[in-house]
Amino acid sequence: MDHAPSLSSKGRLAIIAGKGFLPLYVAKAAQMAGEQPLIIALRNEADGVFDGFETVTTGVGDLATIEGLLRDKGVKRVILSGGVARRPDWRDIHPTLRTILKVPSVLRTLLSGGDDSVLQMVIKLIEAMGCQVLGAHEIVPDLLAKVGQIGAHAPSGDDLRDIEKACEAARRLGELDIGQGAVSVGGRLVALEGVEGTDRMLERVVSLRAEGRISTRRKGVLVKLCKPQQEMRADLPTIGPSTVENAIKAGLAGIAVEAGRALVLEEDKMIALADVAGLFVCGLDSGLPAGGLR
Amino acid sequence: MDHAPSLSSKGRLAIIAGKGFLPLYVAKAAQMAGEQPLIIALRNEADGVFDGFETVTTGVGDLATIEGLLRDKGVKRVILSGGVARRPDWRDIHPTLRTILKVPSVLRTLLSGGDDSVLQMVIKLIEAMGCQVLGAHEIVPDLLAKVGQIGAHAPSGDDLRDIEKACEAARRLGELDIGQGAVSVGGRLVALEGVEGTDRMLERVVSLRAEGRISTRRKGVLVKLCKPQQEMRADLPTIGPSTVENAIKAGLAGIAVEAGRALVLEEDKMIALADVAGLFVCGLDSGLPAGGLR
Repeated sequence: MDHAPSLSSKGRLAIIAGKGFLPLYVAKAAQMAGEQPLIIALRNEADGVFDGFETVTTGVGDLATIEGLLRDKGVKRVILSGGVARRPDWRDIHPTLRTILKVPSVLRTLLSGGDDSVLQMVIKLIEAMGCQVLGAHEIVPDLLAKVGQIGAHAPSGDDLRDIEKACEAARRLGELDIGQGAVSVGGRLVALEGVEGTDRMLERVVSLRAEGRISTRRKGVLVKLCKPQQEMRADLPTIGPSTVENAIKAGLAGIAVEAGRALVLEEDKMIALADVAGLFVCGLDSGLPAGGLR
Repeated sequence: MDHAPSLSSKGRLAIIAGKGFLPLYVAKAAQMAGEQPLIIALRNEADGVFDGFETVTTGVGDLATIEGLLRDKGVKRVILSGGVARRPDWRDIHPTLRTILKVPSVLRTLLSGGDDSVLQMVIKLIEAMGCQVLGAHEIVPDLLAKVGQIGAHAPSGDDLRDIEKACEAARRLGELDIGQGAVSVGGRLVALEGVEGTDRMLERVVSLRAEGRISTRRKGVLVKLCKPQQEMRADLPTIGPSTVENAIKAGLAGIAVEAGRALVLEEDKMIALADVAGLFVCGLDSGLPAGGLR
């Protein structure tokens, strides 16, 4: 089925979709806001089912195809949404010569740096294709975590201490342009997130706990923060029902994320799970005393 | 068999033995230096075979038994050696009232802090029992990593960049009183060591590599550093043949440790393995340009 390009003066919206639930949420929310989003699903990454949306699949590095699609479909606004687990090697990235010439920093960037610089590069390339790159929250502002308690339970005094400890670690990791998550149990940092991601880190906490290498008497807290140099248009820290499920398995007391700079997926379902399990979920405002929790 | 207490004016040497190969090396080296070390093997932790050494097994927190042993066997010098995977809960630690009264900070320490403060507490308790606590390297100085290349291979320019990146991360982790290790691949930090330890972190690199989440075209480097506040008498970063084996599985180019503040176990066997696999091993001097590698 071929959709006509949007007649909106803002041009049609495209969602470049990686792993996870987020791209589908953004697509649905955009549709409810009157958009006709084009889904550009990244091969081996996108795993959502985009029924009812015009969907094209392409390779992660196949920028020439993406450029052609954006032009042919009248796309003027692009959202990058969902994870990209496999980092494209520079040899897999095929921009057109024309695009490269417009963004001379691209080759430099491809040869160095952390995740952020690759994202920045992708954003520059898409902008060089004549599109605006938006954050998911600009289309679905409700996705951003709010300050304070989310759900029925609040962190205890011990939990606040763990939040503080894990925050300090997550902040330093962010400065190193790696990970966004840390787990503290009983005032002791036990796990730091690298390339493996939050779910794997929590699985590690489950095993360490089973082996007695983490106290089973203290619960502990997962904190996810933005990197200080975080590109708000991609890769915001995200929590949702699966994060809560994994935190429960890991025996944690709760989860804290950065308010306004983290996405909450399927909030109702997530809260229901957390409430039943007695888990707290909260949004931190680093500008407020105790993160805005008291 | 009952050994008589050493007649040395320095008093008998005891080795409180946790996990791994280190306690046995220290015991053998001490024996070669004319000592008659008493092995106090920690239950569920010590896994060495201490044939030919007087060995007593005790619980990690059973300080009253340890105190009795030290007194009855004429022990005046103690080495803490090997890992303690299970962190004793404060309820499992049974010091005598007399000892507690000598070291009032103990209860405070038991209720807080990272690994270092627990170690400091154990050291203070043993000192309060009238013993001197020594580092393994004070008995076996050859165990300490030397500056520069160890073995046949040297780091390349790319490897030096990864060493620098992983060093920065390991240094920050140290400031947080967690872990000692980090892996950088192609200038990108991919794994940080938490409570799980170096071997588990390297296993993670193996899986991430198999899943294509880490470039298979870049090799990468493991760095292990001391914490800035490292207690030299316990828990120095350690590498040995198994570290090299795991680094080979993880597809790394090499391993760098802090010279003079890291222990190298079974150096000959480790070098033989590394040389055959083309892996470099080196000791870094943070006071020298390029860590003393050029």
